[in-house]
Amino acid sequence: MTPERNERLTTVLNKRQPDITVVLENVFDPHNISAVMRTADAVGMQDIFILNTKIPPHKKWGAKSSSSAAKWLTVHQYTDANECFAELRKRYKKIYTTHLSSDAVGLHELNLTEPVALVFGNEHSGVSEEIIAMADGNFIIPQVGIIKSLNISVACAVTLYEAYRQKNSAGHYDAIKLQGERFEGLRNEWGFLEEE
Amino acid sequence: MTPERNERLTTVLNKRQPDITVVLENVFDPHNISAVMRTADAVGMQDIFILNTKIPPHKKWGAKSSSSAAKWLTVHQYTDANECFAELRKRYKKIYTTHLSSDAVGLHELNLTEPVALVFGNEHSGVSEEIIAMADGNFIIPQVGIIKSLNISVACAVTLYEAYRQKNSAGHYDAIKLQGERFEGLRNEWGFLEEE
Repeated sequence: MTPERNERLTTVLNKRQPDITVVLENVFDPHNISAVMRTADAVGMQDIFILNTKIPPHKKWGAKSSSSAAKWLTVHQYTDANECFAELRKRYKKIYTTHLSSDAVGLHELNLTEPVALVFGNEHSGVSEEIIAMADGNFIIPQVGIIKSLNISVACAVTLYEAYRQKNSAGHYDAIKLQGERFEGLRNEWGFLEEE
Repeated sequence: MTPERNERLTTVLNKRQPDITVVLENVFDPHNISAVMRTADAVGMQDIFILNTKIPPHKKWGAKSSSSAAKWLTVHQYTDANECFAELRKRYKKIYTTHLSSDAVGLHELNLTEPVALVFGNEHSGVSEEIIAMADGNFIIPQVGIIKSLNISVACAVTLYEAYRQKNSAGHYDAIKLQGERFEGLRNEWGFLEEE
């Protein structure tokens, strides 16, 4: 690895945020998953959970495309909701779903500086009842227009950039947050990846 | 118009924000334009400017699609940058472009509570030098990942929802901001539109 490349990868790893993740529950369209991954990389998210209980596991996410962000993320795939949540509970303090319930709070009222997992559901049916029951609360992206639904990639981008804003204000990007072993592991792995 | 529909349309009109707009300069892909319009509607933006100096004027933006937001917006089309800016200067106090210059500020440092126009450029070449020279400043969406470009629909959604956050905190959605005549004109026009 050239010193320049090592420095570039290290700069990105220094900003990675292991205390936030997105869970995509039965999200069907691989383009939506790719778009979410791209935004995840952009705000420094490292881990993403793909939970497919109702649709077959995805084989890839355009992973061979030159613009794919998947290879720079750690993708956790589950087909069992309980197993997925057991792992989420080990890593994150709160789990919120995007769901329009009577007690849902607006995105901007969430505290996204604590360790959180944010669940986005299927394009048509949304987050399942099972997952809503297991989570700690629901949030919505406020909308005041005529058309009442945002594409999942847009909803997720708006959410992740609100997390970026809060975390940046709280100094989360000023300190290295990846643990040493994990940091070294990812740097070694990334050394073999091609950048476009 | 039924009373219910009148009330629904009035509720949306009450939240419309005539003091913010997006200018799409030579944005090529109609899907990107449609996606931007959808987010614009969602945050209560009413006016959108389409400035095509290097590509032919767009004939439509999927306007016949059932999910099109175009019909709920006031679309201002220009082929001349000076004419476009003359109109923008009448309506908005500041014009900012998305452009990575040395003096660009981060999105979250912009004051989006004053009347602003936000310019997004062509998918490949970005905002033109001509427009950058005419604007009041440049901003960027902060990115800390490996891949350094966000899709325009994502970049615009993140920007418009930051505007929503700031404007909502400042009480902009609590008072009716459309002028009486314009309010009535839009309500009459909307009465003839089909909702999906």
